[in-house]
Amino acid sequence: MNDPLARVAAARVGRLATVDKRGEPHIVPIVFALDGNRIVTAVDHKPKRTTDLKRLRNIAANHRASVLVDHYDEDWSHLWWVRVDGPVEIVTAGPEFDAAIALLAAKYPQYREQPPQGPVVAVTPERVTAWEAE
Amino acid sequence: MNDPLARVAAARVGRLATVDKRGEPHIVPIVFALDGNRIVTAVDHKPKRTTDLKRLRNIAANHRASVLVDHYDEDWSHLWWVRVDGPVEIVTAGPEFDAAIALLAAKYPQYREQPPQGPVVAVTPERVTAWEAE
Repeated sequence: MNDPLARVAAARVGRLATVDKRGEPHIVPIVFALDGNRIVTAVDHKPKRTTDLKRLRNIAANHRASVLVDHYDEDWSHLWWVRVDGPVEIVTAGPEFDAAIALLAAKYPQYREQPPQGPVVAVTPERVTAWEAE
Repeated sequence: MNDPLARVAAARVGRLATVDKRGEPHIVPIVFALDGNRIVTAVDHKPKRTTDLKRLRNIAANHRASVLVDHYDEDWSHLWWVRVDGPVEIVTAGPEFDAAIALLAAKYPQYREQPPQGPVVAVTPERVTAWEAE
């Protein structure tokens, strides 16, 4: 298959799973960019509901994340997915924060007028698992 | 918004997050159907790789799941998602198993010639969270 991280880089949306302090999983859709091989995403500029911040509470309690990028097609011979598992951290300021915001704005024109305010969430790919149908 | 579970019912693909015994999250894309308000999905008939069975090992160790259905659009005013969180169980045989396989085959023509062999994974929606952009 194509380079899995190239597929991740090209995807417009992914899903981020984290775990809360009780051990319960939580998923949110994310827009994201690659900073090197790290996956970076950011909390938006819009007023957030409590549920949107649960990912941050979870990451503070459990430093592991799973990010999935997948392709669905009614022709199931075209299905593929790439999963990135690894440690996750919250970045609130500094060069890494600035780089992530710039990469997100470069990838998504939607962010150019109003870049996300953050914080940034960064996942380091300890394990990359890729699958595709024959 | 529309009834969140109606949106879930109509979606062709979702993502299932589970947690392993070490507390690490894991996501896979799923095709699924609604059996009443339970989300049912099944392990496919094809030979599975080890990674595909991790969801079953996780469910045996941690009975919580999170299922996400979302809609991505480059016009971010059209974004929406629905998340279903709750207990998850593995069903290997019996009326509930048969019903799940029949519902999956009814929803997905791709399953009609070769229904999934299972086991079935069933998530009970203890909490349904829905969001949509304005």
